[in-house]
Amino acid sequence: MKLKALYAIACAILSLGLAGRGRLNSRPTPEHKGGSQEAILAVLCTQQEAWNRSDLVSFMKGYWNSPQVTFAGSSGITRGWETVLARYRAHYPDRQAMGHLEFSDLEIHPLGREAALVLGRWHLKRASDEMGGIFTLVFQRFPEGWRIVHDHTSADEKAR
Amino acid sequence: MKLKALYAIACAILSLGLAGRGRLNSRPTPEHKGGSQEAILAVLCTQQEAWNRSDLVSFMKGYWNSPQVTFAGSSGITRGWETVLARYRAHYPDRQAMGHLEFSDLEIHPLGREAALVLGRWHLKRASDEMGGIFTLVFQRFPEGWRIVHDHTSADEKAR
Repeated sequence: MKLKALYAIACAILSLGLAGRGRLNSRPTPEHKGGSQEAILAVLCTQQEAWNRSDLVSFMKGYWNSPQVTFAGSSGITRGWETVLARYRAHYPDRQAMGHLEFSDLEIHPLGREAALVLGRWHLKRASDEMGGIFTLVFQRFPEGWRIVHDHTSADEKAR
Repeated sequence: MKLKALYAIACAILSLGLAGRGRLNSRPTPEHKGGSQEAILAVLCTQQEAWNRSDLVSFMKGYWNSPQVTFAGSSGITRGWETVLARYRAHYPDRQAMGHLEFSDLEIHPLGREAALVLGRWHLKRASDEMGGIFTLVFQRFPEGWRIVHDHTSADEKAR
């Protein structure tokens, strides 16, 4: 519940433009858990906001910019920042395909000081359909800030 | 390739009964990466071996025995060791349903000294069908050894 409120606040701050994206997203965060949580929530909220203005490159800034970043889904593992971006571009070629994205039910589980496991739900609403599912994100802290090093995203089972 | 060989060796040792499960699986591992890798591979191999003799309780010993352990899949998030076991029992009620399991394409990415991200493929062969997919595991080191604290498993997309 606290995390939900923190996420709402992080998103409100971003959407009001009260904080530069760079400030929230790119500098190393304080050592304590609270600071890391805030920084991770800001990365996620920045991603959600970027997606909803059809800005995939800014969305991708939440990921580690490395050939080693991995995205796992039902079509297997995609490796490398550029390839993950290309995958998103292929699956979501325009504003209509991207629709409106929301993250919810976020959980942050610290894994030491430099990494965290983040669980949550995604929900995508488009003119033609709606879909959703869960994600597992592994974040690591880099000099430039917290970044997703691995993303495993699943879609909910279709009703049968 | 090295990891594939190490996994084969860990499994061979287990299947030959040259190492007690307790020895490989339950004591804290050395600090260095090699020791952690070996210990994690031994947990996975112990799981595979347990599954293939239809021993779900031993399979579950690879998971953190806690109400906080999480399993994510296309049906959502299952929480708690007992609940995850119950889920496996419901999905795989007997030897025939459990079939023969193999893990492959394993990758271990250390997240500091006390946690690791493990990626891999699973393949299940049964009398009636075959299936497979990928998994994301987050391991943490506990006094009793390395344990899975979070499992996100996906099935491959069906051919269309």
